[in-house]
Amino acid sequence: MAYYRFPYESLDRFCTDAFKAMGYSESESKIITDVLLMSDLYGIESHGVSRIIRYSKTVEKDLVDTNAKAEIIKETPVSCVIDAHKCMGQLASHLAMEKAIEKAKTTGIGISVVKNSNHYGIAGYYAKMACNEGLLGLCMTNSEAIMVPTYARKAALGSNPLAIAFPAEPYDFLFDASTTVVTRGKLEIYNKQSKPVPEGWALDATGKGSSDAEDVLLNIANKNGGGITPLGGLTELLGGHKGYGYGMLVEIFCSILSGGSTSNHTFEGDSTGICHSFIAINPDIFGNRDEIKAHFSAFLQELRDMPKAEGAERIYTHGEKEVEAEIYNRKNGIPVNDVTLGEMDDIAKLCGLKLEDYLGSLEGKISKKDSIYS
Amino acid sequence: MAYYRFPYESLDRFCTDAFKAMGYSESESKIITDVLLMSDLYGIESHGVSRIIRYSKTVEKDLVDTNAKAEIIKETPVSCVIDAHKCMGQLASHLAMEKAIEKAKTTGIGISVVKNSNHYGIAGYYAKMACNEGLLGLCMTNSEAIMVPTYARKAALGSNPLAIAFPAEPYDFLFDASTTVVTRGKLEIYNKQSKPVPEGWALDATGKGSSDAEDVLLNIANKNGGGITPLGGLTELLGGHKGYGYGMLVEIFCSILSGGSTSNHTFEGDSTGICHSFIAINPDIFGNRDEIKAHFSAFLQELRDMPKAEGAERIYTHGEKEVEAEIYNRKNGIPVNDVTLGEMDDIAKLCGLKLEDYLGSLEGKISKKDSIYS
Repeated sequence: MAYYRFPYESLDRFCTDAFKAMGYSESESKIITDVLLMSDLYGIESHGVSRIIRYSKTVEKDLVDTNAKAEIIKETPVSCVIDAHKCMGQLASHLAMEKAIEKAKTTGIGISVVKNSNHYGIAGYYAKMACNEGLLGLCMTNSEAIMVPTYARKAALGSNPLAIAFPAEPYDFLFDASTTVVTRGKLEIYNKQSKPVPEGWALDATGKGSSDAEDVLLNIANKNGGGITPLGGLTELLGGHKGYGYGMLVEIFCSILSGGSTSNHTFEGDSTGICHSFIAINPDIFGNRDEIKAHFSAFLQELRDMPKAEGAERIYTHGEKEVEAEIYNRKNGIPVNDVTLGEMDDIAKLCGLKLEDYLGSLEGKISKKDSIYS
Repeated sequence: MAYYRFPYESLDRFCTDAFKAMGYSESESKIITDVLLMSDLYGIESHGVSRIIRYSKTVEKDLVDTNAKAEIIKETPVSCVIDAHKCMGQLASHLAMEKAIEKAKTTGIGISVVKNSNHYGIAGYYAKMACNEGLLGLCMTNSEAIMVPTYARKAALGSNPLAIAFPAEPYDFLFDASTTVVTRGKLEIYNKQSKPVPEGWALDATGKGSSDAEDVLLNIANKNGGGITPLGGLTELLGGHKGYGYGMLVEIFCSILSGGSTSNHTFEGDSTGICHSFIAINPDIFGNRDEIKAHFSAFLQELRDMPKAEGAERIYTHGEKEVEAEIYNRKNGIPVNDVTLGEMDDIAKLCGLKLEDYLGSLEGKISKKDSIYS
């Protein structure tokens, strides 16, 4: 699998135009694109432009309604409940975190829950929105069932990621991770690369360990059984019931509080039914925000300065890799693989665009591989 | 190692009298005892009466001030900050969750953070306090550093448990787990039983895997290096950086927001400096609480009814094991091992009590083993 780098601005222009062609307004297209490309900038290929083919297919299948507007259906000074009415996940989510931030600035805490939404990109984007305002940001989402609960043989919970961001020097803390060992996006990358997945990540339809990414992904999509293991593995010995528990925490904050679809009931009928949750907390209610930030920054530095494990050169605090990847990718371009380029080319044609108008000559750079999400 | 069962009421009377003899009031002693014995009722031996020896030693060493009263030093309609002034963790924590519940009932959300506290027992106790009022309860604490961050060779974060409880039928959901693979309490039980600990749980002072519970516990206590692995294991392959990330989330909510000691600075000088966080959320701000509870209960039942993994007979939802253990232990008595009985006997003597007055004849039931926490 070959990678080619393209300037952020070129990908930004292409994605924005593609989403406009799919029926979104200029400002809506910019929000969706911004979320996707932040993932690529951060080096998280699985949730970046490589998702555009799936987004296009959800519109095609009417799982996403490009005309829908997210609606606030219940509101208090500390909370709101949003019905996304099947709009694009990024649009409902941007509104939801804006409301949470507004409330946190006024009352100290804001929490928004969203139902009837769709895939929203990386959870970290929204946590970071709050962090950029000096607040503690938290964001969670459920998703199509991929996590097999401890002692089950079928997936019932989503990847159910949780992201948290909090201001620090020299860079903000940002932790964004699924409650499974790995995400479905990671399996998709392994599948595109035709590589076997490491032991301990996935289960086949009979509940046994599997290294076949395509088989696992198809079984998930067709609800045939198997899936991805919870963080901590398959049994309680190394804490698999804890990963399952964190997945449940996310489910409570997303689908239960919003009254929406639990992960095992997403993608039923003509909607995905995905639910999210957004929390912003103002540090001012606890103390001086500058002192809190200094205290946190000092702690993070102590962690980075600790004695390293044998063979390890560096201890990371969460968010560092993303900051460094963003600097590198802004300078050198965002890497896109040949299969994703093929998918982008298909979308360009669907949208009446020419991919080369945005990315320059693509001769010999494009691979066409049938998507497993047909 | 032999176990003997004693009625809840007998242990309750003994612990209450022992804490009173240590200098606590009747009502304070009842709170501390209630937290300890809930752990034993739930079948979590590591955080029950087996902790009483450590509690007694922290008083002896002036790490706990039996005369101190927790003080609210900052308050808003949605939050409060409490300085525990080195009082017993259970006392500051009971107050903190009471305040969070009061605020959640009024404004929808309450969050209390506590600094300068001490060990508080099981996190689940406080999450359950909110749940018993029909609220979503969350509780976190940091602790003496035992978790080795990814790529480090020394412990820097605590076991940093997170508990969440939410009302459901036929029993409430209660997830309470450390962000490490296992707790230090689990290693203590293995040490008392002189059993080797399973691979993947702990590291020796050089950062290599260790099965020697006593060695690991002593290294932790003496800050010699090594410790317990984050949930997900030692490297990023199976998600160790995620367990480390959840540990950081807990650290932010506890020590960072409260301005207290981070786990790597607990047990310095004459205080433990432990910090906690308590959150209560009122489901009424999102919808009808009965409908939310019914929705959640149905989801939990679907999980329990799923096809089981090969060889598995049952899928648990979090909190079920605790409910069943409580019913069994209330009926048949709480199991206490011979070494813990020896420690209780020592404490009884220190407090001018006679253990047999509470538990009946203990002839041949007591083992004396020097505590590793001398």
